[in-house]
Amino acid sequence: MTKISCTLESNRVEELDQLLTELKPLILSHISKSSEPGASLGKNVSPQELLKCVPLETPRTGYGTKRVYEVFEQVLENSVVTWHPGFLDKLYASTNPIGVVADILLSLLNTNSHVYTVSPILTLIEKKVSHSYAELFGFNGKFAGGLTFPGGSWSNITSLHMARSILYPQTKTHGNADHRFVIFTSEHSHYSLEKAAILAGMGSGSVIKVQVDANGCMDVEDLNNQVQLAKSKGFTPLYVNATAGTTVLGSFDPLEEISAIAKANNMWFHVDGSWGGNVIFSETYRHKLKGSHLADSLTVNPHKLLGVPTTCSFLLVPDDRTFQTANSLSAPYLFHNTHADDSFYDLADGTMGCGRRPDALKLYMSWMYYGSRGYEERINHAYELASYFANKVAQDKRRFKLISSNPPPALQVCFFFNKNGDFDDDEVNTQTTRKIANQLYNSGRFLVDYTPASGVDGGEFLRVVFNSPIVTSDHVDELYEAIVASAI
Amino acid sequence: MTKISCTLESNRVEELDQLLTELKPLILSHISKSSEPGASLGKNVSPQELLKCVPLETPRTGYGTKRVYEVFEQVLENSVVTWHPGFLDKLYASTNPIGVVADILLSLLNTNSHVYTVSPILTLIEKKVSHSYAELFGFNGKFAGGLTFPGGSWSNITSLHMARSILYPQTKTHGNADHRFVIFTSEHSHYSLEKAAILAGMGSGSVIKVQVDANGCMDVEDLNNQVQLAKSKGFTPLYVNATAGTTVLGSFDPLEEISAIAKANNMWFHVDGSWGGNVIFSETYRHKLKGSHLADSLTVNPHKLLGVPTTCSFLLVPDDRTFQTANSLSAPYLFHNTHADDSFYDLADGTMGCGRRPDALKLYMSWMYYGSRGYEERINHAYELASYFANKVAQDKRRFKLISSNPPPALQVCFFFNKNGDFDDDEVNTQTTRKIANQLYNSGRFLVDYTPASGVDGGEFLRVVFNSPIVTSDHVDELYEAIVASAI
Repeated sequence: MTKISCTLESNRVEELDQLLTELKPLILSHISKSSEPGASLGKNVSPQELLKCVPLETPRTGYGTKRVYEVFEQVLENSVVTWHPGFLDKLYASTNPIGVVADILLSLLNTNSHVYTVSPILTLIEKKVSHSYAELFGFNGKFAGGLTFPGGSWSNITSLHMARSILYPQTKTHGNADHRFVIFTSEHSHYSLEKAAILAGMGSGSVIKVQVDANGCMDVEDLNNQVQLAKSKGFTPLYVNATAGTTVLGSFDPLEEISAIAKANNMWFHVDGSWGGNVIFSETYRHKLKGSHLADSLTVNPHKLLGVPTTCSFLLVPDDRTFQTANSLSAPYLFHNTHADDSFYDLADGTMGCGRRPDALKLYMSWMYYGSRGYEERINHAYELASYFANKVAQDKRRFKLISSNPPPALQVCFFFNKNGDFDDDEVNTQTTRKIANQLYNSGRFLVDYTPASGVDGGEFLRVVFNSPIVTSDHVDELYEAIVASAI
Repeated sequence: MTKISCTLESNRVEELDQLLTELKPLILSHISKSSEPGASLGKNVSPQELLKCVPLETPRTGYGTKRVYEVFEQVLENSVVTWHPGFLDKLYASTNPIGVVADILLSLLNTNSHVYTVSPILTLIEKKVSHSYAELFGFNGKFAGGLTFPGGSWSNITSLHMARSILYPQTKTHGNADHRFVIFTSEHSHYSLEKAAILAGMGSGSVIKVQVDANGCMDVEDLNNQVQLAKSKGFTPLYVNATAGTTVLGSFDPLEEISAIAKANNMWFHVDGSWGGNVIFSETYRHKLKGSHLADSLTVNPHKLLGVPTTCSFLLVPDDRTFQTANSLSAPYLFHNTHADDSFYDLADGTMGCGRRPDALKLYMSWMYYGSRGYEERINHAYELASYFANKVAQDKRRFKLISSNPPPALQVCFFFNKNGDFDDDEVNTQTTRKIANQLYNSGRFLVDYTPASGVDGGEFLRVVFNSPIVTSDHVDELYEAIVASAI
């Protein structure tokens, strides 16, 4: 009979060779151009305008290698350049050479960290980095470890589910049923806690937002009062989240005090350190996480403060067997359990998902490259810049109003600006803030974000985030001048 | 004052240049070696053994570029080679040159498809491919579309949450409360449905497993009976999942009939087409998805049948504004809603998460490269191989017992093997199955999976999956010979 074969991918080695050769100059120039004087970090255009300039298609007949270069270039030209030193908008920055290399390796492997069979070394790498990472936070047991999830939100969601599953095991079969669970988190915490409660079938009404003090840290007395009040109303306190580095102000909740209240009331104690957790690498700043070893689970994202490519989020725990206890169903088609010892190696069994991109490899390769000391240097540098900028803002009382405490708790500097030093009208403040952000973006030199915050009077203010090691005090000076010179 | 600066990443362009130059031969040879005669697809070693040979570290002082090559090589050597034609184990295969290129582009951009500001073109690309994809399944409205989620499980989980949120909107604030929800899915469906129900606070007890017929398709009469029974007991039928391509046998549930029952009982109708959904690209096979346009939501994974790099999963819907209605909290620090028209562009607002890797780009670049016709060719080829192998197995009744129907509904061929043609003892069958899989893996030539299935008597059987276009009938012949020659 005739051989059954297909021509697709028959030329895969030569094609990849050719594409890599063609694209390499484009890749390198994208990075090198980004730090040249006058470089633009992107175009401030609406979706409607952009769509007019860049027609997109999903063709019936493919273009093969013919249009790859063109599409690659088009995407680069119409994206934000995170390598640009003016990208101070979000809690992540560009990645770096080792990040790109790790992504290439993952793509080349194209495998899945759900079971050991198809990801042997990747499974061991995930266990190794998770263990080392967990140890930094003071989880010292033999089984201290963690797993990666596709973003901090999914890590937080998983932690809430684990709390319920471990503390009230019958919920795995019976659901929330008659339990009237409530969870506690500060009014400055990330929205993923509220989404987690909604997803978990508890509803947003089950989320009790604890007050923050003037620095944006959880008010522990209010937490205690709210817990007692909830109990007196017949609710079951399930979970308390402390944030290590809030999204807007960068505040660190007092972990030890919160832990004590959690334990006294039989609640799961979670720390959302998606943003600030990585200060654990810095001898100077790790005191902010004092008490992290008391957590039942802790989220921390290398894709934020460590320059590891998005997404890379870990949920760390004192005993990684908890993942299986809380999450396993043991589907026999996938989990054959043939490698069992005290530990577990088919990692998806410990998640609420199945397939996962093996994100831990990206942290591993980066850690090998930079070492803990490299991370420390990166973090200390970002703190130095944040402090430098906060001082400039604080000193110019005539035109700026600093909202962040000084020095800032994390790497964000939040402030109002007004040429006349008048900050009385919320509406004016908000409009001014938005105009400045817009003008900075239009100049192609800076992208910064803005937001309101509960407990901060005055409307929307600017939030500038320091992170990348390529940013220097010269860039900060330029930013300051650009704000002062803005036509508001 | 002294300039504040940091040396990390100061040499990033030269370093990436150097690393890409160094690693390119390794990348190419990994692929080219994989299809040479006698190539091995991996080593069958236990985690304990592997850990002894490959010490891992998380150093205090980093190695910089010094050890990158070595680590890269070490990971490749201790991973499964998915480019190998004998990788027939899971529902995904290797990726291809355009897949690697798309991953490099994502890494280079290192951005986040949560808001339009930081991913302008990527947002439009996600909307474009989602719309085209949705149209294929018969969602023809102006707002037909979808979003990517980090794996089919998360797409399925999100669909269940959306069902609850749209049909019972008060659950967003009040949780499941007094609702005694039940959901329906076949006993051959993926475990993520059960995990979804547990995560959603309904418990595994809320999952009613509907019987399957002899071909592994949902028994619609049983579905109807179960729904009526649940109602008579005071439960609220919320959601029915039909599977398009089950994990083990590859069966397609009858969508039109299931939809009718869903609608008659005010239930959300979801289709889990993670695996089989992509047959929509084939004129020959798309009839298997007849009725897909009736779905309220549909999961489909380009990372499975289309060779797009892991992970890439879409949740498609008839009207993409449903995502926001069901999932939005509108956190003001992130979602400024400044680009509003009828549509929405800050895509994370429509998810239960926040940051996302912009996975849609990978499908877009692949679609541009292959076109719908290329996908059709890939799928038809895989079907031809599955059919070819199923025939060989069916014809050798003396030693094989085919479990799959012939031709197989999807790309899996499931069967028992026994030299003496004796299949009466479950324990013997299971041991034989495991031994064959193990011997094939030890030879380095084939990796295939095995599993039991409810309704299939006889214990664990072998499951061989066809997917990659580089597999030919010669490889199938070799596999057949290797099984027959196995020392069982």
